[in-house]
Amino acid sequence: MGLVMPTDVPDEGAVAASTALLTDHYELTMLEAALRSGRASRRCVFEVFARSLPSGRRYGVVAGTGRLLEALRDFRFGDAEIADLANRTIVDDATLSFLADYRFDGEVSGYAEGECYFPGSPVLVVESDFAHGVLLETLVLSILNHDCAVASAASRMTGAAGTRPCIEMGSRRTHEWAGVAAARAAYVAGFATTSNLEAGRRWQVPTTGTSAHAFTLLHDDEKEAFAAQVDSLGVGTTLLVDTYDVRTAVRTAVEVAGPSLGAVRLDSGDLVELAAEVRAQLDGLGATGTKIVVTSDLDEYAIAALAAAPVDGYGVGTSLVTGSGAPTAGMVYKLVAREGDDGSMVSVAKVSKDKRSVGGRKWALRRRNGNGTAEAEVIGIGALPEDDGDDRPLLVDLVRDGEIVGASPDAVPDGHRRVLDAARARHEASVAELPRSAHQLSRGEPAIPTVYVDTTP
Amino acid sequence: MGLVMPTDVPDEGAVAASTALLTDHYELTMLEAALRSGRASRRCVFEVFARSLPSGRRYGVVAGTGRLLEALRDFRFGDAEIADLANRTIVDDATLSFLADYRFDGEVSGYAEGECYFPGSPVLVVESDFAHGVLLETLVLSILNHDCAVASAASRMTGAAGTRPCIEMGSRRTHEWAGVAAARAAYVAGFATTSNLEAGRRWQVPTTGTSAHAFTLLHDDEKEAFAAQVDSLGVGTTLLVDTYDVRTAVRTAVEVAGPSLGAVRLDSGDLVELAAEVRAQLDGLGATGTKIVVTSDLDEYAIAALAAAPVDGYGVGTSLVTGSGAPTAGMVYKLVAREGDDGSMVSVAKVSKDKRSVGGRKWALRRRNGNGTAEAEVIGIGALPEDDGDDRPLLVDLVRDGEIVGASPDAVPDGHRRVLDAARARHEASVAELPRSAHQLSRGEPAIPTVYVDTTP
Repeated sequence: MGLVMPTDVPDEGAVAASTALLTDHYELTMLEAALRSGRASRRCVFEVFARSLPSGRRYGVVAGTGRLLEALRDFRFGDAEIADLANRTIVDDATLSFLADYRFDGEVSGYAEGECYFPGSPVLVVESDFAHGVLLETLVLSILNHDCAVASAASRMTGAAGTRPCIEMGSRRTHEWAGVAAARAAYVAGFATTSNLEAGRRWQVPTTGTSAHAFTLLHDDEKEAFAAQVDSLGVGTTLLVDTYDVRTAVRTAVEVAGPSLGAVRLDSGDLVELAAEVRAQLDGLGATGTKIVVTSDLDEYAIAALAAAPVDGYGVGTSLVTGSGAPTAGMVYKLVAREGDDGSMVSVAKVSKDKRSVGGRKWALRRRNGNGTAEAEVIGIGALPEDDGDDRPLLVDLVRDGEIVGASPDAVPDGHRRVLDAARARHEASVAELPRSAHQLSRGEPAIPTVYVDTTP
Repeated sequence: MGLVMPTDVPDEGAVAASTALLTDHYELTMLEAALRSGRASRRCVFEVFARSLPSGRRYGVVAGTGRLLEALRDFRFGDAEIADLANRTIVDDATLSFLADYRFDGEVSGYAEGECYFPGSPVLVVESDFAHGVLLETLVLSILNHDCAVASAASRMTGAAGTRPCIEMGSRRTHEWAGVAAARAAYVAGFATTSNLEAGRRWQVPTTGTSAHAFTLLHDDEKEAFAAQVDSLGVGTTLLVDTYDVRTAVRTAVEVAGPSLGAVRLDSGDLVELAAEVRAQLDGLGATGTKIVVTSDLDEYAIAALAAAPVDGYGVGTSLVTGSGAPTAGMVYKLVAREGDDGSMVSVAKVSKDKRSVGGRKWALRRRNGNGTAEAEVIGIGALPEDDGDDRPLLVDLVRDGEIVGASPDAVPDGHRRVLDAARARHEASVAELPRSAHQLSRGEPAIPTVYVDTTP
């Protein structure tokens, strides 16, 4: 495996040594049965896609690719994992022996991190024998379903915020490690900073933070609290002004910090009205450069509603980490082609009732008109559809012959940040080329249609 | 710290060595400022509670306590954490030095795992100086908000399922580590098993699994696939019968496995109608003991709608791990009392605009009538409210003088399972004593009112 980690990033504080048991029991029983039936060695193509976007959404955003490749690198059944599976008699000895030697040796391609996706987009394509590919289903879906859900919500928020920065502060509202991943996904989708210290260490996402109501309540009065904070963090800090009376607090804040006070934060009340009042008060006190940050249960709609208010930054928590109503991206991992008896690949798909799939290996292209505006998600079954001249192929190589070749940080101190900044730039460009309807927060159809084309050579 | 781990559970595959950076940046800047202002050593009481239940819910379920105590044990700023914070200049040297020596030395009490809670219930009470207590906010909330959200949804599902088992299979729809925690929380709330192998290893939750559509599609035909599965897993296995045509698949399944086939699984279609048809067909084929398991995007409402259908078990994924519409429990961690200048404790609370809190240290009692039915959540401010004779105090000791005293697994091979089984029994009893309205799935008020009583001695 070729992934080189930046040398200054301590890995032990981040994820488990092995990710192999973050897997559904049935992946292993399927493996055991396929090893016995002799079909485990059949070449297979698995595809990850969403049947639809969350209700009313115009586009989705791919995130988690970098995390996935590291999790794939750590997908090893070591002595501890094998002993546990043996102890619980999950699978037979032949399967345990296979698992002990397991190294993913196939190919993975996918949409680059930050890229937009639509219903049916082949966000990830895994090609290997059945045994090697089937085991990855749960881990691949967990990472992509979570991170894409957060990034897709985050993209709507940064879109609504325009040039004003969004601050991610939702760690406390989600699982402790999901918070770290959410901070990373939000950064890909344009958030400026996160509150999460582990996201800073693990992924080099910039972190920020000042104080909570508890800090004010700890002190004898607001003035003592503000003075303590300014003494420690400097006049550039952000003072929280809604513990007692906002008007009094703003006066006290400028009295303590002077007119160069960095910012004040409002965490409750009618923010549109309050922001205007506080702006006028700050200006009256000569603190014309002091910013106003708001943080009270915001989502993309609340952010949009504050567009005309004198607000300089948005802190977003709950709605970000819970995907703003869509906490999972609903992606599935489906077998779409497998080797037949004659060695050629056969398209396969579930055909009964609902949840049908489109069989066959897929390639994808974003069709764009002469102005560079996206017009369709063209999915070729069998080969890459023909480029009209302005189009953009969407699948990039991630793993070749088991070696990670995509989204790897260079071995430099800010390696992870560079990977994330590239994804962030990609997200911005991908969203910018979508038609205007993509930027509407109202419920509607996907911004561009998905078109399937039979491109069998 | 007194927590003894069962010796056969490998810890390294589970969580990070240190949980200390799963923390918001502002907890550390508050600490720094409070160390400088001299207020960091003030005795404080922090309280975790939900201002309200998710819209329309009748009760919430506490889960995650056991995870929290282990995370607390691992909340240490080791060399790697200190070096990272220093490298990023998050806080000053005096604060780094404090963090390097940090060991939580205070008291924690809380609702026992599995217990029901209501708006305002003091689910966790942390007492220590400001410095030691403030640092725990993010980690405490992450664990409780996630695990309580999942357990609260799970409880509605197992309630709707009655005596039929529920199988947790949502790992793929949430963050990879959130899935492990969700499996644990679901088990507390009565789920029978999980698909998640790491939950089996880490928390000793029973795991199960058989096969997916991919396994059928891998083989030349359904018969070959069924034969392979039965060969490997025995006739007691569950065969998935909706890849092609259900009627044909059921016939093939009994043909291959015989009338002792364990179960068939339906993962799509109109399950009420389909279950009845399949039951009749199975009975006609003599497979009267073969069970029917259903697994298609179920939530508590779908489970309730299947109550009269011949279904023997429910597999639940997405809606379980996303809290069935309420992916976070909305709990907050608030300073409610702190030491004053004279050494006595002073009640404190935010008073501006919305998000007001009730200040003062709280104790809680579940008021019950003579029949043992719960009537109110009585919260005493200052001391434990008087017991009417049938009441039940709700706070139990979890940490005393920094030593973990609650919810610790005994050092036996099935130590974690025993702790979970105790929580599971507690959940069952706590739900059983609620009034009938608690068991309605329809939207409504909390099943019992929360009553605040001034019990200041």
